[in-house]
Amino acid sequence: MNGSRRRAALLALTALAASPAEAESPVTPAMRADMERLVGAAVTSSRAPEILRSLTDSVGPRLSGSPGDRAAVAWGVATLRALGFSNVRAEKVLVPVWRRISESASMTAPYPQSFAVAALGGSVSTPDGGITAEVVEAGSLAAVDALGERAKGKIVFIWKTTERARDGHGYGETVPIRSAGAVRAAKLGALAVLIRSVGTDDDRLPHTGAMSYDEKTPKIPAAALSTPDADLLHRVLAEGRPVTVTLNLRTETGPDAESANVVGEIPGREMPGEIVLVGGHLDSWDLGPGAIDNGAGCAIAIEAARLIGALPRRPRRTVRVVLFANEENGLRGGRTYAAEHAAELARHAAAVEADSGGDRALGYAWNAGPGAEAFMKEMSAFLAGIGAGEFRKGGAGGADISPLLPSGLPLLGLRSDASRYFDVHHTANDTYDKVDPVQLNQATAALAAMTFALAEAAEPLPRIPESDRTRRPPD
Amino acid sequence: MNGSRRRAALLALTALAASPAEAESPVTPAMRADMERLVGAAVTSSRAPEILRSLTDSVGPRLSGSPGDRAAVAWGVATLRALGFSNVRAEKVLVPVWRRISESASMTAPYPQSFAVAALGGSVSTPDGGITAEVVEAGSLAAVDALGERAKGKIVFIWKTTERARDGHGYGETVPIRSAGAVRAAKLGALAVLIRSVGTDDDRLPHTGAMSYDEKTPKIPAAALSTPDADLLHRVLAEGRPVTVTLNLRTETGPDAESANVVGEIPGREMPGEIVLVGGHLDSWDLGPGAIDNGAGCAIAIEAARLIGALPRRPRRTVRVVLFANEENGLRGGRTYAAEHAAELARHAAAVEADSGGDRALGYAWNAGPGAEAFMKEMSAFLAGIGAGEFRKGGAGGADISPLLPSGLPLLGLRSDASRYFDVHHTANDTYDKVDPVQLNQATAALAAMTFALAEAAEPLPRIPESDRTRRPPD
Repeated sequence: MNGSRRRAALLALTALAASPAEAESPVTPAMRADMERLVGAAVTSSRAPEILRSLTDSVGPRLSGSPGDRAAVAWGVATLRALGFSNVRAEKVLVPVWRRISESASMTAPYPQSFAVAALGGSVSTPDGGITAEVVEAGSLAAVDALGERAKGKIVFIWKTTERARDGHGYGETVPIRSAGAVRAAKLGALAVLIRSVGTDDDRLPHTGAMSYDEKTPKIPAAALSTPDADLLHRVLAEGRPVTVTLNLRTETGPDAESANVVGEIPGREMPGEIVLVGGHLDSWDLGPGAIDNGAGCAIAIEAARLIGALPRRPRRTVRVVLFANEENGLRGGRTYAAEHAAELARHAAAVEADSGGDRALGYAWNAGPGAEAFMKEMSAFLAGIGAGEFRKGGAGGADISPLLPSGLPLLGLRSDASRYFDVHHTANDTYDKVDPVQLNQATAALAAMTFALAEAAEPLPRIPESDRTRRPPD
Repeated sequence: MNGSRRRAALLALTALAASPAEAESPVTPAMRADMERLVGAAVTSSRAPEILRSLTDSVGPRLSGSPGDRAAVAWGVATLRALGFSNVRAEKVLVPVWRRISESASMTAPYPQSFAVAALGGSVSTPDGGITAEVVEAGSLAAVDALGERAKGKIVFIWKTTERARDGHGYGETVPIRSAGAVRAAKLGALAVLIRSVGTDDDRLPHTGAMSYDEKTPKIPAAALSTPDADLLHRVLAEGRPVTVTLNLRTETGPDAESANVVGEIPGREMPGEIVLVGGHLDSWDLGPGAIDNGAGCAIAIEAARLIGALPRRPRRTVRVVLFANEENGLRGGRTYAAEHAAELARHAAAVEADSGGDRALGYAWNAGPGAEAFMKEMSAFLAGIGAGEFRKGGAGGADISPLLPSGLPLLGLRSDASRYFDVHHTANDTYDKVDPVQLNQATAALAAMTFALAEAAEPLPRIPESDRTRRPPD
C-alpha cells in the first residue's frame, strides 16, 4: 500500500470507528458488545432446537385442557428449573375445554370420494347419523350472504385459496372465513359449513383453528377440508350437476379446566423489580405437536433468556419468560396475566412476543410512545446484519401480550418469514422436522439481542400514549 | 451481410439441410414431420390433463378388486369409446383382493404419542386388542438379521431414509425393506414390523405398497409410519430408554375378484395386424386416487394414441392402448395379457410402458436386439429438443410389460423425472393437483412421438435375442 492509499484507508477506518451519533445513542457500545456476544452464542451454541425437540417429542399436541396441556405445563416448569431460571412457577389459568372425538366426510354424488376433513375448533357435532345434503359453493363471506334462499337446508362450502406470502397476509385474508363462516351460513338456514383449509400447502392434512358462534344464530357444524379435497369438490361442483356430501363430526365441550401460564425469571442486576417480559403461547391445536405454532416461540424465548442469564453481567432489569396458556382458543392466558399482574404492570418496561414460527426472523413490529424511534432505528441497524432489520411500527406485539395494551406497556412482536408457515400451521404436519435449526438459531439471536437491550437500556421505552391504548391498533 | 459472409451462411444452411446420414435413416423425413406435428399438438392441445382429472375425480382410489377398481374399468372402456378408439374391450383378469379396514399405532412409553400409520399392502391383521411391545430398531435388512435374539417378542422398527433422486434410485435402495422386512423380522420371532415410509416427503401421510410373506415363516403384521412419525420414534429410541408401541391393524383378504385390462386401438393403415402396444396400469393403491401412480401414465398413453389417430395419415401398424389391471399387488394384468395374447405376440412390434409419474419425460429405457441402436440414436436426438433425449439400454420397459420379455418383443419404458415422485407415491397425497399440466403434456409428446415412430417405421425393431429373454435384465 502506498502512502496516499494508506492515508485514505485510515480516514475510512476513523469514520467507521467514531460515528457522530454514537455519543447520544440509546444503544451504548457496552450494550452492543453484549448483544454481539449473544448473537454469536445463539447461532453457534443455542439449545433452542433441543428445547423444541424436548417439547414436541415428550409432550406432543397440547390443546387447552387436554392431558397434553397438563403435560406441557409440567414440562415448562421442569425445563425452566433445569435451565437455572429463578422464581419458576405455574400461574393458574382456567381454560375452555373442547375436544375432537371423530370426524369424516365424503362425497356421495355424483361420485363417491372420501375427504380428509377436520372439525374447526369449537364446532358442535353433527346430529347422530351425520348430515347428508346438497352442497352450494361460495367464494367469500359476502358471497355466502348473497346465496340467500339457496343456502337453506344445504351444506355451504366456502372455497377460497390462501396466498403464500412472506408477511403472511394471505392468512389475514382467508381466516375470517374460518372464524365467521358458520354464523354467516347459519343465518341463511344452512345445515353445516365446509371451508377450504386456510393454508398454503397441497397436503391431504386439513387445517383446524378457532371458529365462533353468536348466541342469536343456530350453531351449525363447521369443518375444513384439506386443500386437495376442497379443490376436488370445487372441480366437481364446476361440472354443474348436484353434488351431495355426508358430514359426520363428533366433538365435545366440557367445563373449564385448570391450566397455567408458566413463568421463570433472570433477575435484573440493578432493578430486579422492573420486568421485561418475553414469551409466547405454550398450548397448541390438537392435530399435531405444534412445533412451529408455537413450540418454536417457546423455545426461542426460553433460550434467549437463558443466554442473557449466562452473560458475565446480567442486564439491569429482570427478564421474565412467560409461556402463555390457551392462545389458540380463548386467550385466557394473556388475559389472566394482564389481570393478575395489573398492579405490577407499571413496573414492566416492555413485553416481547414470539409467535411467528421457526423460520428466520425478519424484524419486529413495535408499539411504544413518541421518542422510541431512536432506539428502534439503532436496533434495526444492528439486527440488519443477521437479516432481521425490518422494523415496523404498529400492532400490539402479538395475541398473548395484546391484553397489556391498556397499560401502555411498549409491545413488540418478533416477525419471522411466514412463507412456509401456513403450510403446516394447525395441521398434523406441524412437527419438529419442519424447523430448520439454523433459522431457529437466527431467530433466537434476534430475540436475545432485543430482550437484552430492553432490559439493559438506561431509560425504558416511552409508554404508549393514553389515547392509543383503548383498542388494538392495526398491524 | 457482405458477399463472403453470405456464402458462409449458405454453406452452413446447406450442411443443415442435407445431413449425410439422412438417406439411410430409420426415421425418415416424413416420419419426422409427423412427429413434429404430434409434439406440437401434445404441448398445446393435449387432453391428457383432462383425462387424468376425469379418472381421479370420478373414480378415485382403485385398488384391485375394490369398487373403485370396477369403476376404473368402466371408466376406461367409456373413455376409450368416447375418444373414438376401435375394438374397445375389457379383457377379464382375476385379481387378488386385500382390504384395509382400520389401523392405528401409538407410542405408549416413555411418552404418549399418536402415529400416522398405514398397513403395508398384503399385511395380516394384528390379534384382537392389537400388539403392545417394546421396539428394537435396525437400519437395514442386514441389521434386522443381526438383531438375533433381541428381536424376539418385540416390534422390529426399520429406519432408513429414502434418498431423493432424479432417477428414483433411492426407492430401489429402500423398497426391499418394505417387501421383505416382515419375513426377516418374523424369522427372529418378532411380533410385528414397522418401517419408515419408503418416501422422500416430510408429511404425516404414510406410504403403503406391496410386501410379501413366505410360506415357511410366520406371517406378522407390517406397517409404515409416516416419515415424521418414524423420525420421532427414531429420536426417542436414541434417548436410550425402553420404548413401547401399540399397533392395531385390521385387514382382510378375500377370494380373487374379476377385474380387466382395458384395451382400445388405433388401427394401422397398412399392417393392422401388427401391434405397437402402449400403456400402463390402471389400478392404484387404496390410500389416494393414484394421480401420478398411475393415472398420469394412463392419461398420456391414451392421449398419445388419440393424437396419433388424429393425424391426417395413421401409421402403418396398429397402436393398441392397454390399461393394465393389478400392477400394484400382483401383476396379474401384465401376466394375463402375456398369456392370453401369446399367439399374437409374434405380430407385436414393440411395447411401451408409461408408469413413471406425471413429471417431465427425460427419455427412455429400451431393450431390443442388435441393430436397434440407429433408431434409438435418432429418436434420442429428436426428443432431446423437448428434454427427453436420455436413452439408456436395459430393463424390461416396466412391470406390466415385463412378462412379454420371453417373447423377445422390444420393450421400452418412458423415464420421467422422479425427483418429486416419491413424495406422494402410494399415499393419500397422490392427487390431481400434484400433476403439472405443462410437464404432463411434454411427457405426452415424448410418448406420442416414440409410439408413432415404432408404428410407422419401415422395419420393426430387431427382437431381443433368445439368450436375453429368460430373466428380467437389470435396469
